[in-house]
Amino acid sequence: MSLPEFETLTLERDGPLTVMTLNRPERLNAFSVTMARELLAAFDALDADRGTRAVIVTGAGRGFCAGMDLVPTEETGGNVFGLDASVDLEGPESARIRDLGGQVTLRIFRMTKPVVAALNGVAVGVGATMTLAMDARVISTKARLGFVFAKIGVCLEACSSWFLPRLVGMQTALDWAMSGEIVDAEAMRKAGYAAEVAEPEALLATAKARALRYVEGTSPVSVAVNRQMLWRMAGAAHPMEAHRLDSRVMVALSQADGHEGVTAFAEKRAPVFADAPPEDLPEVFDWRAEPPWR
Amino acid sequence: MSLPEFETLTLERDGPLTVMTLNRPERLNAFSVTMARELLAAFDALDADRGTRAVIVTGAGRGFCAGMDLVPTEETGGNVFGLDASVDLEGPESARIRDLGGQVTLRIFRMTKPVVAALNGVAVGVGATMTLAMDARVISTKARLGFVFAKIGVCLEACSSWFLPRLVGMQTALDWAMSGEIVDAEAMRKAGYAAEVAEPEALLATAKARALRYVEGTSPVSVAVNRQMLWRMAGAAHPMEAHRLDSRVMVALSQADGHEGVTAFAEKRAPVFADAPPEDLPEVFDWRAEPPWR
Amino acid sequence: MSLPEFETLTLERDGPLTVMTLNRPERLNAFSVTMARELLAAFDALDADRGTRAVIVTGAGRGFCAGMDLVPTEETGGNVFGLDASVDLEGPESARIRDLGGQVTLRIFRMTKPVVAALNGVAVGVGATMTLAMDARVISTKARLGFVFAKIGVCLEACSSWFLPRLVGMQTALDWAMSGEIVDAEAMRKAGYAAEVAEPEALLATAKARALRYVEGTSPVSVAVNRQMLWRMAGAAHPMEAHRLDSRVMVALSQADGHEGVTAFAEKRAPVFADAPPEDLPEVFDWRAEPPWR
Repeated sequence: MSLPEFETLTLERDGPLTVMTLNRPERLNAFSVTMARELLAAFDALDADRGTRAVIVTGAGRGFCAGMDLVPTEETGGNVFGLDASVDLEGPESARIRDLGGQVTLRIFRMTKPVVAALNGVAVGVGATMTLAMDARVISTKARLGFVFAKIGVCLEACSSWFLPRLVGMQTALDWAMSGEIVDAEAMRKAGYAAEVAEPEALLATAKARALRYVEGTSPVSVAVNRQMLWRMAGAAHPMEAHRLDSRVMVALSQADGHEGVTAFAEKRAPVFADAPPEDLPEVFDWRAEPPWR
Repeated sequence: MSLPEFETLTLERDGPLTVMTLNRPERLNAFSVTMARELLAAFDALDADRGTRAVIVTGAGRGFCAGMDLVPTEETGGNVFGLDASVDLEGPESARIRDLGGQVTLRIFRMTKPVVAALNGVAVGVGATMTLAMDARVISTKARLGFVFAKIGVCLEACSSWFLPRLVGMQTALDWAMSGEIVDAEAMRKAGYAAEVAEPEALLATAKARALRYVEGTSPVSVAVNRQMLWRMAGAAHPMEAHRLDSRVMVALSQADGHEGVTAFAEKRAPVFADAPPEDLPEVFDWRAEPPWR
Repeated sequence: MSLPEFETLTLERDGPLTVMTLNRPERLNAFSVTMARELLAAFDALDADRGTRAVIVTGAGRGFCAGMDLVPTEETGGNVFGLDASVDLEGPESARIRDLGGQVTLRIFRMTKPVVAALNGVAVGVGATMTLAMDARVISTKARLGFVFAKIGVCLEACSSWFLPRLVGMQTALDWAMSGEIVDAEAMRKAGYAAEVAEPEALLATAKARALRYVEGTSPVSVAVNRQMLWRMAGAAHPMEAHRLDSRVMVALSQADGHEGVTAFAEKRAPVFADAPPEDLPEVFDWRAEPPWR
């Protein structure tokens, strides 16, 4: 399958990996309404692409993403957040004010492939929050991160109030969100935000090496369900919810990739996993399910 | 507005900060029924006070808070926990046995201003648990912390079973709660309980410097909603809950402080945020909402 | 009370502690349907045994537990996971496919005594996931841990998608689950999986010393309720849930072990706690309650 082309980002294959590059380097890859729509379309395409086993997200030039482009354009109609403030916030048409960043992080949340951020430079605002729904963050020593919302009079968006404490703990999450300060690579590492720190010239290779660990010798379907189960159970009230889900998924997989895996183990050979998401995911759960907007 | 006066604690302004000092030094600031009532009244007053941008909580003398005052008095009527054990625990009058420490931590949870603990000495029992609902903990090298409930035959109170693992993780939370042991400053730092450790003479200045990072150059309304969103989403089942909330808050703020913030950014000047909690919080959410006691 | 005897594990008293040893050393203590049933019976017996104040779980020989025994036997009927794949996964008979590992971790979750893992060697698959529901993990420098499910085409089981991120955070949980890699003792320590690392010859003594910290000088009932409250509140939506529970438990305990604890404190003597689980737990909550399978 050939990958789609976009205006604000590029997709490039490297074997089983696909690198998504935010590509507005003249604006430090600032987020726009167009970029939001293209990110949604790109993640849809990569989720459906059997050739893509994992996704790397990085930025062109010296920045990762400078946040919402704070220059009014025709598409934002003066409201730089791309929000239509005239709607009844509680009525049925309220979906028109759904935060764009949140639509992107909820889409990443539902991915069936690992998503690794390769943070090459400045990531602020939605540039910072979109990375929270990814599975791992590899950062350059030159990367900078800022949940700057308090500095410009707005709020944590892109569901970051849900994601951030689950990654760095409550105390750091509150500190970053209430100060609005920019943090450096060492602070990102200490906080547990960064899985790995690399020199700028080694960043992409490091991120790819990490993504390959999720790809080589693993069952694509297993990786998909493990990824989703961890994210979906992160807010579950009781381990019984995991028990209901994993019991059924285990039965289904034991007749598919699990059968091959155990057979190969017994025969002392490498397994050959033919199944792949999204088509071959166990049907005992709706992996695309999402609570409704309201 | 002049700040109210209390018997067991003092409030003192320092510019945009207000320092709350637990003030029963002859009893190591032990918690009493009166102190509980006064803490509730003091947090109410500071939340309503536009001149207070952040709160520091510390103790007078060499202790922070020695926990519930284990000497029966007239006000506790023999039950040193201040609890009326004669009520039907499931009936409507059960609200009379609502744990005092929990009433305090739930009040802090609903604050619209940052609350920073400056732990100057021993904090045990409710003296330890009340700090968990605060946003950051700066501790003296002489501070000591003890969730000593198992040593005296009672239980984790003040909602600490909810707060503690979200701060230090399950393994440490279980260890501290099942051993009942006193831990020192280094253990608090390693566990992630303490945001910063300071020499005793530098403690208050360090705590103030941290609180000022949440105050200077930030929108008071943004800080308030970011603080509350993080706490309220800490137990949310799915990021969609954050999406519903942050989408609406973003629309509201983009017409208020966000408008000023973006304009100032475009004009390359410092923003002037006129709004402040509690009056000017976006009305799209009831920031005082709390699940009912029952 | 004399402790029961089993085929796949042994129970041995050491004062207030009971050591449970997985005992199929010729198979690296691989998990079987029989072992699952015996683990459930053993935890039932120890929970009911007033003489057992805490449980240590370790493995005989050089391994801890090599995961599900991937050799088909009469009892697994060809499906090595012990699962009956012929049942309607959504119908009433679906309980027959309840994951065995999950039944064990849910049983540990409901324990009223501390459970400490002493990880002596390799722990993979259910050998790894069963330790997540325990309260502390002491590991040998020779221990190895592997959530290897993705390597053999199956999924995270034993409710590990709920337990793992609450112990090591989302980023590490995703990394271990999507790579399926074996991690060494140093990685376990850095991730917060291990509470302590010991030389092999000191492992059991270290684990016992830790368990004794939860036993000596503490109220058995307090330890039980603190343990359960922390686990049960780990997924609670709001601290009010903890407030409802701890308020009632505090009233109940203040008339039982809490009365003795406070009296002993006032009299400057060591308390004598006569109560013990399971009989003497406060009746204001059903400590055996569990959401239904469905």
